[in-house]
Amino acid sequence: MIPTLTWTPEGVRFIDQTRLPLEESYVLATTYDEVADVIVTMVVRGAPAIGVSAAYGVALGAIRSKAESAERFAPEFEKICARLAGTRPTAVNLFWAIDRMKALFAKLLAANATLVQVQEKILAEANAMYDEDIAACKAMGAFGAELLPDEGGVLTHCNAGALATCGYGTALGVIRAAVERGKRIHVYADETRPFLQGARLTAWELMADGIPTTVICDNMAASLMRQGKIQAVVVGADRIAANGDTANKIGTYNVAILAREHGIPFYVAAPWSTIDLATATGDAIPIEERPAREVTHHAGTQLTPNGVGICNPAFDVTPAKYIASIITERGALRAPYTESLKEMEMVS
Amino acid sequence: MIPTLTWTPEGVRFIDQTRLPLEESYVLATTYDEVADVIVTMVVRGAPAIGVSAAYGVALGAIRSKAESAERFAPEFEKICARLAGTRPTAVNLFWAIDRMKALFAKLLAANATLVQVQEKILAEANAMYDEDIAACKAMGAFGAELLPDEGGVLTHCNAGALATCGYGTALGVIRAAVERGKRIHVYADETRPFLQGARLTAWELMADGIPTTVICDNMAASLMRQGKIQAVVVGADRIAANGDTANKIGTYNVAILAREHGIPFYVAAPWSTIDLATATGDAIPIEERPAREVTHHAGTQLTPNGVGICNPAFDVTPAKYIASIITERGALRAPYTESLKEMEMVS
Repeated sequence: MIPTLTWTPEGVRFIDQTRLPLEESYVLATTYDEVADVIVTMVVRGAPAIGVSAAYGVALGAIRSKAESAERFAPEFEKICARLAGTRPTAVNLFWAIDRMKALFAKLLAANATLVQVQEKILAEANAMYDEDIAACKAMGAFGAELLPDEGGVLTHCNAGALATCGYGTALGVIRAAVERGKRIHVYADETRPFLQGARLTAWELMADGIPTTVICDNMAASLMRQGKIQAVVVGADRIAANGDTANKIGTYNVAILAREHGIPFYVAAPWSTIDLATATGDAIPIEERPAREVTHHAGTQLTPNGVGICNPAFDVTPAKYIASIITERGALRAPYTESLKEMEMVS
Repeated sequence: MIPTLTWTPEGVRFIDQTRLPLEESYVLATTYDEVADVIVTMVVRGAPAIGVSAAYGVALGAIRSKAESAERFAPEFEKICARLAGTRPTAVNLFWAIDRMKALFAKLLAANATLVQVQEKILAEANAMYDEDIAACKAMGAFGAELLPDEGGVLTHCNAGALATCGYGTALGVIRAAVERGKRIHVYADETRPFLQGARLTAWELMADGIPTTVICDNMAASLMRQGKIQAVVVGADRIAANGDTANKIGTYNVAILAREHGIPFYVAAPWSTIDLATATGDAIPIEERPAREVTHHAGTQLTPNGVGICNPAFDVTPAKYIASIITERGALRAPYTESLKEMEMVS
């Protein structure tokens, strides 16, 4: 299994996703501040992986604390949570993980827990979130595999794989599950400019699993669809609003429109922690603007003339109407999502 | 004016488009074979520029010939034309230019011209094609400028600019003409993977003219359209079939679909030499597949894991139904293009 992030007694060990696929190296974050840096610099990325990383960051912060008691730790705890929450604005899993830690800490304080107990319980919670994440990916895979064709091309955008989660993946988990069930899937991976998660990460992890993969530039998708090479699209998500509008890696909305134009189903796979029922529609999802240098440079080489304007939104929002199903660990939901999401939230 | 290609007594001087925007260097092609290499390696690119380059290639071949007479030169002439025609399959301007030279040569042979006369006439014809190209761009600009909004964002894909022609540009000529007429245009330039003609060339030449330009990754277009930042799209063409279907740089079809989905007019600007009435529909246009390395590497840095599959079609076909107008030097045509193209061909 691909070791996206691993808890160790020394800290959290991350595979360095900025150096894949050519170099398989690891970064050890020994403080919560280093975990925050690892998230900001995209050594680790992918909404579910960011959530669990932040949870381990809180655990590291608690374990490293020199406070004399759980009560004295409280202001430090707030600072830790604020630092981790400030890393990236779009993926709601980050805030979900931190809120879960806050609720746990409040409960422990109310129960007069010691700092040692707080440390143990917070680490146990982070470990539980890690395990739940993998279980959720497997469940998503089972639900989603049904939706993919027995044979054909499946397009994915960015990396919603093992590297975006604690293992197995969301969109790529659906593809893995389909392949495990004997479906003959050829994956087309959008290279996903500017950070090239598709070219670098999706290609790397699917090749490791022996799943046939072709990398394409983001602008080739329509042409392949028209040629009949794509039977389905499956992507991950960074935040899903209450009406089903889905924020995901920049370019996802493009792909959704192209899929609809060619009559190809467009699926979103994400754990329930990505669903943000407190956000009514996609218009209210904050979209992170990342440094221009990600667009203007690659590996130190400048691509653009000096001084030209640059856009670099990290995400876009795909309106719910383009989405054939939102595949979660609780089931594969169908439109209208305002109803299906609310119902599923209540029954689960 | 940007010196895309220039005839000199020593040969054809090309600005090296593989090195822009960071380095403004020139390549001198002193033989027809070197002109062919310059086309294959994309030192020069862009359908109209390729056409005129091939014409100068034929002229160089004629001038360098050691044949004793025009008749003796004939087999060599065929070889020169075949070599130049074999460089790139999609842009019809290449074949148009070579066919024009073949017709001229046949006429000169029939008139018992000497080799010196053939050399002079072929060079004069290439020079005429050069001048006609600039005049066509200016005329396209005048027709197309009318169609652009008085103020707003105009998206373009690839480089259909001065660098794709002998000067001024087709799509960028339309934008230049609009700006010259006082329209306040902000250009959004798709970076245009894998060769980055937008990021490197369009940005460079528009900045040289002081036209406000923002480079975006190809996958950001839909998001900007949804935000209301794009009021029109204008692109060039490599071949336009008799029904209006248009081959252009890979990703153009994507943009056309996205524009239609957002109710934004999508314009194609191209000289009449790009129109191929002998090709009924876009399905019959040959699409060049270029080396995988253009996708897998940038400036020597490998982006993808070893052994992954790669697609690299250089062009796609945008069906006529997505095109609001085909802007030529003879006028801005409207659908149905089968009729409007045929009519314009007959009256001109």
